[in-house]
Amino acid sequence: MPDASIASPAARVEQVLSALRKTLPQQVSTVTSVREEHSHGEAMDAAQLPEAVVFAQSTDDVSRVLSLCHVHHVPVVAFGAGTSVEGHVTPPEHAISLDLSRMTDIVQFNPEDLDCRVQAGLTRQELNSRIRDSGLFFPVDPGGEATLGGMCATRASGTAAVKYGTMKENVLGLTVVLASGEIIRTGGRVRKSSTGYDLTSLFIGSEGTLGVITEAQLRLYGLPEAVAAAVCQFETVDEAVRTAVEVIQYGIPVARVELADEVQMAACIAYSHLDELRPLPTLFFEFTGGPAAVREQVEATESLARENGGLGFDWADTPEERTRLWKARHNAYWAARAIEPTALVISTDCIVPISRLAELIDGVRHDIRESGLRAAMVGHVGDGNFHTLILTENTSEGRKRLLDLDRKIVARALALDGSCSGEHGVGLGKLEFLETEHGAGALNVMRTIKKAMDPLNILNPGKLIPQEKGTCP
Amino acid sequence: MPDASIASPAARVEQVLSALRKTLPQQVSTVTSVREEHSHGEAMDAAQLPEAVVFAQSTDDVSRVLSLCHVHHVPVVAFGAGTSVEGHVTPPEHAISLDLSRMTDIVQFNPEDLDCRVQAGLTRQELNSRIRDSGLFFPVDPGGEATLGGMCATRASGTAAVKYGTMKENVLGLTVVLASGEIIRTGGRVRKSSTGYDLTSLFIGSEGTLGVITEAQLRLYGLPEAVAAAVCQFETVDEAVRTAVEVIQYGIPVARVELADEVQMAACIAYSHLDELRPLPTLFFEFTGGPAAVREQVEATESLARENGGLGFDWADTPEERTRLWKARHNAYWAARAIEPTALVISTDCIVPISRLAELIDGVRHDIRESGLRAAMVGHVGDGNFHTLILTENTSEGRKRLLDLDRKIVARALALDGSCSGEHGVGLGKLEFLETEHGAGALNVMRTIKKAMDPLNILNPGKLIPQEKGTCP
Repeated sequence: MPDASIASPAARVEQVLSALRKTLPQQVSTVTSVREEHSHGEAMDAAQLPEAVVFAQSTDDVSRVLSLCHVHHVPVVAFGAGTSVEGHVTPPEHAISLDLSRMTDIVQFNPEDLDCRVQAGLTRQELNSRIRDSGLFFPVDPGGEATLGGMCATRASGTAAVKYGTMKENVLGLTVVLASGEIIRTGGRVRKSSTGYDLTSLFIGSEGTLGVITEAQLRLYGLPEAVAAAVCQFETVDEAVRTAVEVIQYGIPVARVELADEVQMAACIAYSHLDELRPLPTLFFEFTGGPAAVREQVEATESLARENGGLGFDWADTPEERTRLWKARHNAYWAARAIEPTALVISTDCIVPISRLAELIDGVRHDIRESGLRAAMVGHVGDGNFHTLILTENTSEGRKRLLDLDRKIVARALALDGSCSGEHGVGLGKLEFLETEHGAGALNVMRTIKKAMDPLNILNPGKLIPQEKGTCP
Repeated sequence: MPDASIASPAARVEQVLSALRKTLPQQVSTVTSVREEHSHGEAMDAAQLPEAVVFAQSTDDVSRVLSLCHVHHVPVVAFGAGTSVEGHVTPPEHAISLDLSRMTDIVQFNPEDLDCRVQAGLTRQELNSRIRDSGLFFPVDPGGEATLGGMCATRASGTAAVKYGTMKENVLGLTVVLASGEIIRTGGRVRKSSTGYDLTSLFIGSEGTLGVITEAQLRLYGLPEAVAAAVCQFETVDEAVRTAVEVIQYGIPVARVELADEVQMAACIAYSHLDELRPLPTLFFEFTGGPAAVREQVEATESLARENGGLGFDWADTPEERTRLWKARHNAYWAARAIEPTALVISTDCIVPISRLAELIDGVRHDIRESGLRAAMVGHVGDGNFHTLILTENTSEGRKRLLDLDRKIVARALALDGSCSGEHGVGLGKLEFLETEHGAGALNVMRTIKKAMDPLNILNPGKLIPQEKGTCP
């Protein structure tokens, strides 16, 4: 075995690649365009080329790659669809990008138990399209066309979390390849178990720093018998937020409840030609269940909305009309981008306890005004999570103003018992907030676990856990 | 600092106690009756006296005790209500039992956010009684009068898990004292977050082996607007199980669905004088929600029950009538004990994917017949979890027959993708099954984490993780 500590980083990578070219000859690429594709996600962070991209086709392939990287001390970053917005998939120096997007099988489908097992590279959309005829679906919906492995690794959620929960609540078990190349399985198929440490939850959200997830056992749900959508506009954000808060507090089992502010709505109206809407704070609802239950939810929600100053309450239960009502929300991201097509855009991702949301949004609107930047707000208001889409000119001064505003927003959320990221993850983008959010003690436990499970620090090094002060990179 | 590796175990305990008698003089007890109370839970395992019992009144007290135990290498086992049925609270040799039952404060109550923060020694019943006027409640219901800290430590659940989930889904954050005495906080108050390793889930179910939980932030729910209960009897267990499975598969959001077999029902009828019921397999349902939604659930369930051979379908929505319908289920444990009042009783706790439940129960009934023992079955059939209450004479031969039967039942469940414990935990009682259930790889990751977080092995040593083969205790 070569002495990995002496050889140069480039030489160590070359040793890994020369071994892989023998065992996986069709799956190793050093073509520049392929490396470029794998040099970044969708964050504005600087890109970094990996030395090579390896396309895994099986858990065994992943194991082979990690074994070699372990022996030769070469960093590895897993890559799915590249939709991360926090720099998770940006490689460190002299690293290999391990692409799992060819692993798209449904390994098991157990409709009678409402579960399935998928390979990590399958996307949520593709899974739902393949199982549609069974009347079942996987509900976690982060918006983008992400892989299910990536969604596990970042503890993704989205608009449906208020009813169905996040990846944390919807993954029953995993296959994971550890830093050494060893393959383990966590959890299983049962709905609950009280035996042993919850390793599944430990890997969910670990951003590729403790192991590479290659398969996931997922909970499925029956497509609801009835679905209704509703839209309600308000004179003020406060009224809209209060309505959403009361819907949750009254225990109405709403499937989605989304908020868009007046800046976002003006953009949506212009982008999607929605003349029936006004540029006012707007709530979008979805209700699911039996027909009588859905009707009951709509009525209860309408009554709360009216009590809080709602200007009308438009609802529908046919697919076409539901799509019409939600069109503004569906196109919100693209509408916001269209405000200034050449602008740089980032999305904040704070979350607070729902009673603090109105206070937070007030503060954020103040910060936006002070910054002089344009920003639209859209939120998964049912769980206290919202995104500010901030637009700025693509210059270093523009980036600086944008990051300053982002920091102010995060500081406000943390001061209100919140988290800096409800669903996007830490990656590189949120590292600086981890100690304030979790405290030094919890962060040190995370470091202890990382060191114990990846002592050579080859698994996506530099992500999720900020360096200890006074240590070298 | 004394050299802990040289002094005898008894001397080391004495050093801890003499320091504690100065700082916590009213809180240390070596009285035999107190030590006896803390020598076991409700399992049939042999008891072991702790050297002393320390009654913590605060997180700082727990920290003081652990710091001292860490310095002097003295094992500590946390004790709440002593309701564990798997030996979790039985002390190892020369250990201190750390009693948290005096820590019963509600530290925070945030009705507008549907959460609260409690000290670990508060029981679920007491919490619900103190917050009743708010219209909120904590739904996880393991049956016994357990403390919320103990419920966290064993990942408890119970009859309401099919709707509300287990402790895993209902704890937002924790205060934990680590082996060194350091106090950390995990998670927080937000409904979801994707920042950092999920330490909360790591401590939930860790049975006091990674830290001592002193506070928990809990999700609360609104008391439902309408509640209905229903009972339906069947000629065969298969028909009853098929009905329960279809209720879940059709997505009826049932709040509870419990099964009792004919042995259990005969016992219940005798114990509670229920002449309107017959000794037949029986399903007990609870439905909650808006009045129209509840009616819709009752109707849909009744129709499924009738299609599967249900013999009538008795339902009610007033509190008195609901209590009458569920009386058999509520008294099931005591009814089963009354079959043979002097017998030794244990409860198995297997869980399988719901489609395997009928096959498992068939096999278990075969094993029971072969064993010649008497056993009643009652199950949280909505999530595939069921308990066999096995009765035997209290002799070493009786214990042996009972454990043999338990092993056969667990082996059947594991062969059907199940788990040896849905909600009771591992403790000492289920140690032997862990490797078969999780595999050597996952078990070694658990050992790695344990060693990293408790290198001196002072936290509830010997529980949850079986020893590696070939190592000494």
